[in-house]
Amino acid sequence: MGTAAASPEQGVWRIDAERLWSRLMALARIGATPGGGVDRQALSAEEIESWRTMIDWAVSAGLEPSTDAAGNLFIALPGADRNAPPVLAGSHLDSQPGGGRFDGVYGVLAALEVLTTLSEHGVRPQEDIVCVAWMNEEGSRFAPGMMGSEAFAGVRSLEAVRAVRDADGIAVADALDALHAAFPALRRRPLGFPVAAYLEAHIEQGPVLEAQECTIGVVTGIQGKKTFDIVIEGERGHAGTLAMADRRDALEAFTRIAAALYAEIGGHDDAVKFTIGRLQVEPNAPSVVPERVTMRIDLRHPDNAVLGYLGQRLAALCETFAAPCSVRVTALVDAPSNGFDPALQQAIARAAGSIEATHMPILSAAGHDARHMAPLCPSAMIFIPCRDGVSHAEHEWAEPAHVAAGANVLLNVLLPYAGAGEGETP
Amino acid sequence: MGTAAASPEQGVWRIDAERLWSRLMALARIGATPGGGVDRQALSAEEIESWRTMIDWAVSAGLEPSTDAAGNLFIALPGADRNAPPVLAGSHLDSQPGGGRFDGVYGVLAALEVLTTLSEHGVRPQEDIVCVAWMNEEGSRFAPGMMGSEAFAGVRSLEAVRAVRDADGIAVADALDALHAAFPALRRRPLGFPVAAYLEAHIEQGPVLEAQECTIGVVTGIQGKKTFDIVIEGERGHAGTLAMADRRDALEAFTRIAAALYAEIGGHDDAVKFTIGRLQVEPNAPSVVPERVTMRIDLRHPDNAVLGYLGQRLAALCETFAAPCSVRVTALVDAPSNGFDPALQQAIARAAGSIEATHMPILSAAGHDARHMAPLCPSAMIFIPCRDGVSHAEHEWAEPAHVAAGANVLLNVLLPYAGAGEGETP
Repeated sequence: MGTAAASPEQGVWRIDAERLWSRLMALARIGATPGGGVDRQALSAEEIESWRTMIDWAVSAGLEPSTDAAGNLFIALPGADRNAPPVLAGSHLDSQPGGGRFDGVYGVLAALEVLTTLSEHGVRPQEDIVCVAWMNEEGSRFAPGMMGSEAFAGVRSLEAVRAVRDADGIAVADALDALHAAFPALRRRPLGFPVAAYLEAHIEQGPVLEAQECTIGVVTGIQGKKTFDIVIEGERGHAGTLAMADRRDALEAFTRIAAALYAEIGGHDDAVKFTIGRLQVEPNAPSVVPERVTMRIDLRHPDNAVLGYLGQRLAALCETFAAPCSVRVTALVDAPSNGFDPALQQAIARAAGSIEATHMPILSAAGHDARHMAPLCPSAMIFIPCRDGVSHAEHEWAEPAHVAAGANVLLNVLLPYAGAGEGETP
Repeated sequence: MGTAAASPEQGVWRIDAERLWSRLMALARIGATPGGGVDRQALSAEEIESWRTMIDWAVSAGLEPSTDAAGNLFIALPGADRNAPPVLAGSHLDSQPGGGRFDGVYGVLAALEVLTTLSEHGVRPQEDIVCVAWMNEEGSRFAPGMMGSEAFAGVRSLEAVRAVRDADGIAVADALDALHAAFPALRRRPLGFPVAAYLEAHIEQGPVLEAQECTIGVVTGIQGKKTFDIVIEGERGHAGTLAMADRRDALEAFTRIAAALYAEIGGHDDAVKFTIGRLQVEPNAPSVVPERVTMRIDLRHPDNAVLGYLGQRLAALCETFAAPCSVRVTALVDAPSNGFDPALQQAIARAAGSIEATHMPILSAAGHDARHMAPLCPSAMIFIPCRDGVSHAEHEWAEPAHVAAGANVLLNVLLPYAGAGEGETP
C-alpha cells in the first residue's frame, strides 16, 4: 500500500502516548514487587504472562506473533514482500530481581506501539517490520544474560544456552520448552534469519541525559565489558581456637584482593566501571573461618585497549594478594566495545529534530542486545533519560514525555522502511 | 552398695575403649557426609535418630533416660538418694554443617561409657551420676547456640529459645515439640534442677596439646567471646553505568571496614581470635552495585579487659571506614571469660596421673556448655588432642588412645562420687 490512509499531524507521525504509558504500567503489574519495582525473571511464569498480554495486544492490532528456538518473541507488521529481510526493533521483557518498570520492557513496548500506530494507519511496508523481545537479557536467573540475541546471532550455540541451569537446578531447556508449550499455536521462525536493520529504544541507565537536560540520546556505541569468576581457596577452621597466624582465611584474602582491585582497577580513570556484584562465602557459618570465597567481577571500559590491559592487571592482582590462600580466575564474558551504524545515528538525530526533541550523542555504558545485532546488520539505539540515572532498582523512573518522545523517534526512523515519512531508508 | 562388685585392674578403673570407639563411629554414621564428616543439626531427624540410639544403649545398661523442657537428654546411673543433686557429665550431639566425628559427641559418649562401666561393675553411687547431651550447642541451624545449657542455667528464657527460627522459618518450639513427641514415654525433669558438679570431656579444637605431645588438657577456663551483627547500607546501581565516583557500594565499604578490623583487631596480640564467618551481599546480582552487606563477627580473648576494649574499637572502626555508606553494629553474644573449679582441676590432674597420661593446664579457646554450668556448681573440662588442631571440619580426628584416655580420666574423677576410687569427692 505504501503511505498510510490516515495522515500525520502537521507532517509528523505520532504514536499514542497514553496507550504506550498505560501498557508500560500494565506490564509493570506482572511480577510487581512491594517496593514498586518488578521481578520478572527470564522464562518464568511472569514472563509467560507478559507474552500472553503482548500477543493479545498484537493480534487485536492485526500484527502477527511468532517465536524461535531460542525463546525470542517476534510481533510482525506484515510487509508486501514477506520473504525480504525484515527490520527489527525491540529489547527484552525480563528484569533484574529488584528491577524497575522501564529497563527492557520500554524498548519492546515502544516498538509494539510503533507497529500498532502504523497498522492503525493502514500502512503496509515493503518488508516486515518486527517488534522483538529477546530472551533473558539480564542473566539474573540464568547466567550470563543476552541468551536470546546471542543464540540468534550465533555467538552462543542453542545447545550451550539450553544447558544453563538456575540456582534451583532448572535448565533453560526445560523452562524454554515450558514457555513454548504455553503457546502451542505460535509460528516458529528459523533462528538467525536475515535482518535488514535493528533498532533498540532504552532508558539510559545513567545520569548523562538528565544532567544535560536532553531528551534523546543518539547512541554511538556500547562500552566493552569483561566478566570474571574468581574463586579464593583457603582452609576452614574453628573461630575460637585457630590462632590468627595459622589461618588461611579465604575472606581475609578476599579483603586484600578486593582492596587492591577497587584501588587500581576501579581507580584507573574516570571511564572505568568496576563492580563485584556477587559474592559467596563458604561455609558461611558464624564460628567457622571461611574456606572459600567465590565472586563475580563486572569490568567495563569504552577503550578496548584499556579494557584488555585492566583484565590482565586484574588477574595479576588476584595472584599477588591471595597468599596464603590460592586463587583461580576464570574469564567469562569478553565483549569488546562496538560502534553503531552512522547512517542510522543520523536518522535518529533527524527524527528527534522532526519532533522538536533535544538530542546528543552518547556512549552506552550498559550492555544491550543491540551489541549482538550490530555485526549482523545496520544497528542503532535510542536512549531516553531516567531519573537520577538509577536503573536495576525498584524506583527506576522515566518521565511520560520522554517515554513518548523516544517512541516517536523510533516511529520516524522506521517510517522510511514503511514507505512513508522521510522517503528513503537511511 | 558403695564400691563395685568387679574390682579395677591394678587398682585403676578403666572404661571399655573398644566399645567407646565403636559407639563414636556408630553415631558418626547418623548424618554422615560424603567427605567423612557429620552434619547433624539440632532438633533434626538425625538428632532424633541419635537420641534413639543413645536411649537403646542406656536402657540395655540399666541406665535411666529422661529429658527436660529445653530438649536436653539425660541418662542417669541411679544413686542411693534419688533426691540428692546429681553429678552431671556430658556435652552435645549436634554438629556444624560440615562438622567432624568428635566435637560434642565425644563428651556425651565418654560420660555414657563411664556410667555403663560403673553399672556393669554393679556400682550404686550415693547420688545420681548423669550423662547429659545439651540441646543445640553449635547454633548452626538455630542461632545463637548453647540453647539447652543456657535455658537450663536460666541465662536465656525457654520462651526466647522456643521463638528462634531456622533459615526455613521453622521455630525451635515446633522442632522441640516434634523431638519430644518422638519419645512420648521419656520422663521429664524440671528445667534447672540442682547439680552437685559438672564435667565435660571434649577434643581441644586447637593445636596446643598435639604440639606439646600431651594427652590430657586440664582446662583452666574458657576465653571470653563477643559476637556482633554488622549491616552496611549503601545504594544499588547499574554496574555498567554508575560512575565509580558516584557509587555508595556496600561491598567496597565492607572491604575497607574488614581490612581495618583484620589489621587492628585481628592483629592486636597473639591471643585474640577475630573471625568474619558469615557474610551476605544484597542483591548479590552479577551486574548490580551491592546495596547492603550483612556480616557476623566472632571475637574472642582470654582477658576480659582486652575483650571489652576490642569490642569498642570494633564499633569505632566500622563507623570510621563506612562512608559514604552507613553502618549499624549490633552486639549479640557477650560472654566474659571464666575459670573452672580449682579442686576439680586438681582431681583431673590426679586422675591423669593415675592412668599414666601426660597432662597440662590449658585455656579453652572455644566456647562450651560448661561455661553456663560453672556459675551453678563446681565445673571443669577434660581436653584430648585433635589432629592438626582441626575442628568444625569433616576431617576432624582424634586418636583412639586419646579418646580412651580422656574417658578414663573422666571415670576416675567421677569415682569418688560413686563411692569408689579416691574416696573423697574433690
